[in-house]
Amino acid sequence: MSAPFAQRLSDAVAGRRSQVVLGLDPDPAQLWPAAAAAAAGPGSPAQRAARAVVEHCRLLIEAAGPACVAVKPQLACFERLGAPGWAALAEVIGLAHSGGLLVIADAKRGDFPPTAAAYAQALAGTTPTLAGEVPGLGADAFTANPLLGADALAPFVASGAGLFVLVRTSNPGAADVQDLELAGGERVWERLARLVHELGEVRPCGLSDIGAVMGATSPQHLPRARELMPHAIFLLPGVGAQGGRVEDLAPAFAPGRAGGLVTASRSIAAAHESSGGDPGEAAHAEAQRLREIAWTLAG
Amino acid sequence: MSAPFAQRLSDAVAGRRSQVVLGLDPDPAQLWPAAAAAAAGPGSPAQRAARAVVEHCRLLIEAAGPACVAVKPQLACFERLGAPGWAALAEVIGLAHSGGLLVIADAKRGDFPPTAAAYAQALAGTTPTLAGEVPGLGADAFTANPLLGADALAPFVASGAGLFVLVRTSNPGAADVQDLELAGGERVWERLARLVHELGEVRPCGLSDIGAVMGATSPQHLPRARELMPHAIFLLPGVGAQGGRVEDLAPAFAPGRAGGLVTASRSIAAAHESSGGDPGEAAHAEAQRLREIAWTLAG
Repeated sequence: MSAPFAQRLSDAVAGRRSQVVLGLDPDPAQLWPAAAAAAAGPGSPAQRAARAVVEHCRLLIEAAGPACVAVKPQLACFERLGAPGWAALAEVIGLAHSGGLLVIADAKRGDFPPTAAAYAQALAGTTPTLAGEVPGLGADAFTANPLLGADALAPFVASGAGLFVLVRTSNPGAADVQDLELAGGERVWERLARLVHELGEVRPCGLSDIGAVMGATSPQHLPRARELMPHAIFLLPGVGAQGGRVEDLAPAFAPGRAGGLVTASRSIAAAHESSGGDPGEAAHAEAQRLREIAWTLAG
Repeated sequence: MSAPFAQRLSDAVAGRRSQVVLGLDPDPAQLWPAAAAAAAGPGSPAQRAARAVVEHCRLLIEAAGPACVAVKPQLACFERLGAPGWAALAEVIGLAHSGGLLVIADAKRGDFPPTAAAYAQALAGTTPTLAGEVPGLGADAFTANPLLGADALAPFVASGAGLFVLVRTSNPGAADVQDLELAGGERVWERLARLVHELGEVRPCGLSDIGAVMGATSPQHLPRARELMPHAIFLLPGVGAQGGRVEDLAPAFAPGRAGGLVTASRSIAAAHESSGGDPGEAAHAEAQRLREIAWTLAG
């Protein structure tokens, strides 16, 4: 029985001196040149592209991983390569774990309770079958959508994995539903925040296994979000390519350094496009830059 | 270029004289006895279980499919078998298409716009890669979660696939978020319904490609939902095992027979557990029973 997610994350943040999460959103048409060669050889287009995707992620993890505490593979980017893509995802998760990184599966799943249980098996559990137990992806945590309510989140919580529930996302359309004003004066996202707060058990590190996705593009929400969810770990996407700035995220770190995870994908993987030079060196430099800003902010 | 989804569905409902959608939620520990033999032979537990899942779905589609207009595979149930599960899903979709059935991928995806585009590629499109174009699952339609707002749904709409957006789901926890009262007096789900109505283009058959998931367990919402979404196709889960009754669904059919799709999974696949007899015969009888009630209601 491994320690609770919040505790493992807290230890990893301290041990690796990083709160940076490396987003893995591989575009199989635009991989690093050094990875493209892996697409040569036999196989269907999906198999060949999946090999190159694994190689791209391997190089990215090797280069930027040492400056990070976790990776966040975006499931859509693997699923679009079919079964070979799902196998690639499993392989990439193994590579990240071998590098000492935690894995947050960016799945944004949400479904009615029996189906939610099946997703939990797929992402972070095992599945009993007539041919024996089948292991899932082995993610340490995953992202979840709360629109279906508390009973639909319960199987995710019961899985023992860490959870990052969508509360206020980083896209402009987030306002359409999440910012609607409720009869009592609160916004929908504030109610989602209350739901997150009620789901989580606080661990000795002061944090809960049930965290929240809070887009870094609207940092004005962070003080209120922290008030409503004093123990939640905030997963903060939108830094870099989407316009969010690490400097604006200070309230996330109120409960300690592991209280805020700065996630960046394109700004790390495509750093060489603006800085020039080797993709791996540029990726490492950008991850290192984010790491230092966040560490100072949260100190 | 195939016809718009609403038109194809409308034609299929008329041609097959059915509004029943066969849910495919295979539990790899509880498959039909006739399918279990497929798990023998070589391979990992996941590969063996996936073979048996395909066989189970093949038998179910052969037995109940002729009484139905579409199948609705539940992605979680396949994903939990990893890459072999994803391959099984692709195979099952092929079997359904061969049987003349439309395919609604029950994915409940929702993500920020670039990621939503990747999900659309995975489910109903193709993906350009450095090794050539990779086909997706080829679903005719899929389910989607609207919590991230209109910009996150736009890539789904642009994919040309049919869409069923969660509006009011069939689980008890649906009330936690979807039934919250907004400042103007409406419920959150009513706002989601307006969003659905604005997204869809009405086809000559009188229906829109953008439909709504409306749980059959709370039929009291259907008249209002129909008012807000006069042209949306309602996907109505929750009949049977979850307690919904076809007899209560009449308002769904106001715009025509294809305006409401009665989806049933366990009540068809496990019909033999209550009725006794051969699983295939019991499944066919239950699908046929639902078909006749819905057809009469909608006439």
